[in-house]
Amino acid sequence: MKKLIVGQSGGPTSVINSSLAGVYYEAKRVGFDKVYGMLNGIEGLLEDKIVDLDKYFKNKDNLELLKRTPSSFLGSCRYKLGSIKDNEKDYKKIFEILDKHKIDSLIYIGGNDSMDTVASLYDYAVANNKSQNFIGVPKTIDNDLPITDHCPGYGSASKYIATTLREIIQDNNVYGSTKPTISVVEIMGRHAGWLTSAAALAKDESSEGVDAIYLPEVPFDIKKFIKDTKELLKTKSSICIAVSEGIKTKDDKFVCELVDDNLATDSFGHKELAGCAEALCKIIKKELGVKTRAINFSTLQRAAAHLASKTDLDEAFKCGCKGAKLAFNGDSGKMVIMKRVSNKPYKINYEVFDDIHKIANVEKKVPMEWIDTKNNYVSKELINYLRPLIQGEVKQIMKDGLPQHINLK
Amino acid sequence: MKKLIVGQSGGPTSVINSSLAGVYYEAKRVGFDKVYGMLNGIEGLLEDKIVDLDKYFKNKDNLELLKRTPSSFLGSCRYKLGSIKDNEKDYKKIFEILDKHKIDSLIYIGGNDSMDTVASLYDYAVANNKSQNFIGVPKTIDNDLPITDHCPGYGSASKYIATTLREIIQDNNVYGSTKPTISVVEIMGRHAGWLTSAAALAKDESSEGVDAIYLPEVPFDIKKFIKDTKELLKTKSSICIAVSEGIKTKDDKFVCELVDDNLATDSFGHKELAGCAEALCKIIKKELGVKTRAINFSTLQRAAAHLASKTDLDEAFKCGCKGAKLAFNGDSGKMVIMKRVSNKPYKINYEVFDDIHKIANVEKKVPMEWIDTKNNYVSKELINYLRPLIQGEVKQIMKDGLPQHINLK
Repeated sequence: MKKLIVGQSGGPTSVINSSLAGVYYEAKRVGFDKVYGMLNGIEGLLEDKIVDLDKYFKNKDNLELLKRTPSSFLGSCRYKLGSIKDNEKDYKKIFEILDKHKIDSLIYIGGNDSMDTVASLYDYAVANNKSQNFIGVPKTIDNDLPITDHCPGYGSASKYIATTLREIIQDNNVYGSTKPTISVVEIMGRHAGWLTSAAALAKDESSEGVDAIYLPEVPFDIKKFIKDTKELLKTKSSICIAVSEGIKTKDDKFVCELVDDNLATDSFGHKELAGCAEALCKIIKKELGVKTRAINFSTLQRAAAHLASKTDLDEAFKCGCKGAKLAFNGDSGKMVIMKRVSNKPYKINYEVFDDIHKIANVEKKVPMEWIDTKNNYVSKELINYLRPLIQGEVKQIMKDGLPQHINLK
Repeated sequence: MKKLIVGQSGGPTSVINSSLAGVYYEAKRVGFDKVYGMLNGIEGLLEDKIVDLDKYFKNKDNLELLKRTPSSFLGSCRYKLGSIKDNEKDYKKIFEILDKHKIDSLIYIGGNDSMDTVASLYDYAVANNKSQNFIGVPKTIDNDLPITDHCPGYGSASKYIATTLREIIQDNNVYGSTKPTISVVEIMGRHAGWLTSAAALAKDESSEGVDAIYLPEVPFDIKKFIKDTKELLKTKSSICIAVSEGIKTKDDKFVCELVDDNLATDSFGHKELAGCAEALCKIIKKELGVKTRAINFSTLQRAAAHLASKTDLDEAFKCGCKGAKLAFNGDSGKMVIMKRVSNKPYKINYEVFDDIHKIANVEKKVPMEWIDTKNNYVSKELINYLRPLIQGEVKQIMKDGLPQHINLK
């Protein structure tokens, strides 16, 4: 009797449930007798909150619904296990629970912080001669995990951003030269500008695209920003600018901190950013006297399953499948990665990276040679890298004009 | 040689171009020899900025692309003609331009303010023995035009709101009881709560829906709001509240004015509202100490053609067709209206309302008997009225993973 438990952690995405579907589907196929889900990630596991996934997914229709349901079906957490030395109690508790349920393997679907959890559990198991094995499956709209070519979730969020920006640009243009309008659109990504870069996809022969893109990899210079925006206004009356929520001045201040110095922090000690687009609009209005509009995609960009990329959804599923295979083989302390074998035609191989410690807590940023700091844009190389990830549409399961989702009951 | 000119005015929608497509298609069919478009509505007409629409739409593929392109293809304006007595110069100029181009008929696609323009032009023509005739085609996501059953644009904006709210609710739920979260979502509609009411559609067996809906028809009571939200927190950790941008306290203050008393006004003297959701989040955080998230749909709700309702798109087209027919018949000072013949099955007749003065500047609000002020929700009747309008999906014309649009060149 082989048993697997799977959890989801960190910020949700449109396709993190497709990875969960892949884990379940493949785990049953390769021979796990039981597949459990932990509720709210490791935090729920610590409280022994687990469910038998057969209850939901023996029905194949439900598995299809799961793939199309945004956010984390099992719930999520931002709980950090902490070092083994200082938090042995937590680790003991987790292994007690795994032993109690006779669980052999654990798969954790998540980003940087989640891979740290997998690494720590693996280290504890090795040090204490525990039999369980631990596998990471990548997920993050931020696309900031190293080693893997890209991360499931990134393609769908990018497709949302490019599609929605086209619509915003259409709308922004409506009053023409009678009323110059600048929209500043704020996009997620605190330290890495991958997702904000997706704004570049909006441009083609049917859309003029965004006029500037500001990434957190480059120190943000307010004076240059105003000068460049003023320059744009000389030739255009409708301007759309994409900015990462995480842009910082060279003295390490978030743009929103220039307006509000008293930001709250989350349980990881990360500052809760807010209103960078709004801050910039205030500055533009004051300096240039034109109509502005601050747009913040907020959670829409990571939850818009109705705009999921088929490529991304399928890849998320296959990463989950690969994770289940590795778990069944007894691999441990490893993460599933994607390798791009070729770009035209686009082809991905699903492989394994052997040392998850090299992934945990490492943030992959946009390389400087892919950023055009003079023109505030990204390079052709970045666009070529990203474009395959947004291809294809996912048919939602509709009822009464609205997409259906599946939830824990 | 019969000639028609068509213009678009006011805030854009996802399907206002479908009405333009209907006007063009039917105008050519019934026998107009020329169909012109005025750029940026009446403001552009005053400057003789007109285009020959054959240049773009003799190609039928382009007409299909136009139907799927959000925002106003011809551009828009918020220019108010003013009374004939005080602004005779403007009226003279317009008729000079119409005479110069030998234009017989004018169709204006828009909302309340636009219908005022049609009424004024009609009045001037009658008083001055002018031969041209003037027809209004309804358009507004606000759904606040009287007499017509509903307005093109409303169904698609509602579909966007209900779909996106489902996704937001999925996302909001992710940390479960470990971290209670309240999302406050701000929806357009200054005086009428029709669009905010669409939040009620989110609820069905697959989604718990929003927990409360606050419309501008009801004076907003902050104390009751806090009390009701506190009550919700007793049984739920994930709460989503929909509010209209236009909610006002009983002493006639917009909620955002409670935070910022110095709002700008637009050319109609309307205050430029901002940040009502944000203001409420600040209040909740202070009073209840829970995590909040303010989400503002901004222009996304009126521009999201990728989520257009097929029903709405088709109705917008047919309203345009009906307008062209009326124009060809020489009708004047009238507006196209929709009459609901039956709700199950849903069936609409396209008719004409004879006196546009009774439509201009009149705002139809949500009837009080459709609002549940105790539970901060809307009635079953409103939901039954709205649900048919969001039915059906529109296949976008895709290229490289993104929807294509058509623009003036």
